[in-house]
Amino acid sequence: MTVLILTSEQDVTADMAVVELNANGIPVLRLDPAELPGGVGLSGEFAHGAFHGHLSVGGRVVSMGGLRSIWVRRPGVPAAHAEAASPWLTEEASHSLYGMLRCTEARWMNHPDSARQARHKPWQLWLARACGLPVPATLITTFPRAAREFAERYPDLIVKPVSGKHPDDAGLAVPTTRVRPGEDYRDVANGPTLLQRRVRRAADIRLTCVGDQLFAARAASSRDAEDARHGDEAAVDDVRFDPAAGPWRPIPVPRRVADAVRAYLTRAQLAYGAFDFAEDADGVWWFLECNQSGQFGFIEIETGQPIGRAVAQWLAGAPFGPISAAGGDDERALGAECG
Amino acid sequence: MTVLILTSEQDVTADMAVVELNANGIPVLRLDPAELPGGVGLSGEFAHGAFHGHLSVGGRVVSMGGLRSIWVRRPGVPAAHAEAASPWLTEEASHSLYGMLRCTEARWMNHPDSARQARHKPWQLWLARACGLPVPATLITTFPRAAREFAERYPDLIVKPVSGKHPDDAGLAVPTTRVRPGEDYRDVANGPTLLQRRVRRAADIRLTCVGDQLFAARAASSRDAEDARHGDEAAVDDVRFDPAAGPWRPIPVPRRVADAVRAYLTRAQLAYGAFDFAEDADGVWWFLECNQSGQFGFIEIETGQPIGRAVAQWLAGAPFGPISAAGGDDERALGAECG
Repeated sequence: MTVLILTSEQDVTADMAVVELNANGIPVLRLDPAELPGGVGLSGEFAHGAFHGHLSVGGRVVSMGGLRSIWVRRPGVPAAHAEAASPWLTEEASHSLYGMLRCTEARWMNHPDSARQARHKPWQLWLARACGLPVPATLITTFPRAAREFAERYPDLIVKPVSGKHPDDAGLAVPTTRVRPGEDYRDVANGPTLLQRRVRRAADIRLTCVGDQLFAARAASSRDAEDARHGDEAAVDDVRFDPAAGPWRPIPVPRRVADAVRAYLTRAQLAYGAFDFAEDADGVWWFLECNQSGQFGFIEIETGQPIGRAVAQWLAGAPFGPISAAGGDDERALGAECG
Repeated sequence: MTVLILTSEQDVTADMAVVELNANGIPVLRLDPAELPGGVGLSGEFAHGAFHGHLSVGGRVVSMGGLRSIWVRRPGVPAAHAEAASPWLTEEASHSLYGMLRCTEARWMNHPDSARQARHKPWQLWLARACGLPVPATLITTFPRAAREFAERYPDLIVKPVSGKHPDDAGLAVPTTRVRPGEDYRDVANGPTLLQRRVRRAADIRLTCVGDQLFAARAASSRDAEDARHGDEAAVDDVRFDPAAGPWRPIPVPRRVADAVRAYLTRAQLAYGAFDFAEDADGVWWFLECNQSGQFGFIEIETGQPIGRAVAQWLAGAPFGPISAAGGDDERALGAECG
């Protein structure tokens, strides 16, 4: 039984899991949908009540019935590298590939439908709250008056994109920014705008969840930098763009948070999720977002947490030899709850 | 409690249901996401553990908590008509609108995730067969050799798009076409190609399903036209492009087919689906496809089947006054099974 990894050629994070799968003798097929048709081929026959599908990459042919799991890492746009690339060919290639993969019994990390749902930030906020996570007061609006009233109730606000495109999407990375005092919010009418009460953070928390295994890391905020910024008219308030943030250090996950994020992943039908929290002065973790395809490489490198190994184990569907560190016991850790 | 209809301004099919909703005193809000921001506004606040959302169209404001159902008919691309239209604004508007609607308890016809899954033709074929519907042997492939071998086993083939874009999508409507004898299939390597054993049809069947209510219509094939075409090198084999096809006439649904399509809709989590079958000389209905957003206006006009009324009843979530015709008893008809 093979693990299928859909990702682009340059993907160091995928490599971290592939190394573990190779070391444990689990067959891996790695392909980029952008290479279909071309370097990647497929064939599927529906006849006599059965479906038989095959994938081919560089001459290697694998039966779709023999896939144990599918990791949707960073796949390219189907047919993007084809000679006759076009929106039409992309549709045809996409429906062929994902349509057939949907007919298999493989487990998904993450299923495309769950992934799509999970990207909607309003739904994230709603679900996080429903699962018991504290969420800072948030407004999404096209009404300047609603924005002004919200700003009266919560004078210290940040603004950030609703669609939360990943910073890898060139040109669409918009950092979270503090709102200037006295903002008149007229421009809100030109596009839905997300305003959120700013949490004065003691630290940023990244909680990476792989099936039932949780890996929390903490980066202390740079107080000095924060105070300096406080007087600015507008300033970036985003750890991704903060060179002064402390290093990531592993920390334990509070029991209540662990229960809540597991409930979140179960309801969202996600096998993988990277949660971002802001820790305030009282130690409360405020939910900011859950990125269903969030990077984990930088966390693993800084903290030594074996996240790539956990991903590999989930994809393998069975525990590997002796586990080095990591939380959760092995049997339960392999996605029984969140798979 | 209001029914929300997401569709473009010109939509005669939507009008057919709106008339019924109006006649029964059910409030309707109709909006085109293309008008957000602009003619359409929204506002949603997440605070103190609750979500409060509102939609505004032409000055009328409706609470999202007061939506009883959402009909995703033919919505425009979010922000497409905005002054500063851009892919980025489309993402922001789309995530804002659909993200908030996902937080409501409204019933969907159809939910965007179910709709997306349902568009994948390979998955349709697989599910139809799993639910007990006869499916003609089908191959989807990028391998010329696989295509040639398939053609040896099934010499009379048609070719059609995998992604089955709706004919409304200008420029992407590709009719189902018979494959020329002696085709060498080299071009299959340039894009996944769907080949299917051609069913020699006595008639086309359109089976429109609204919740648990089924409406079948039959259009007899023009035998003469078919025989004339048989000698052609390549010919369109698609009722949508056949001016000689007979008129649509209502017919009863065989019990086995009714059970199978209800199972299909339940597993696909669809409240609405338009199935296309080819009826062969023995009266067998061969599954061709299920369009989760298929038109019903032309069928209703030709057959008199009250499909718009059934849609309106499903959206209302309660039976209207005396039913004129239609199958199924009223209580069960309102989506208990497939909602």
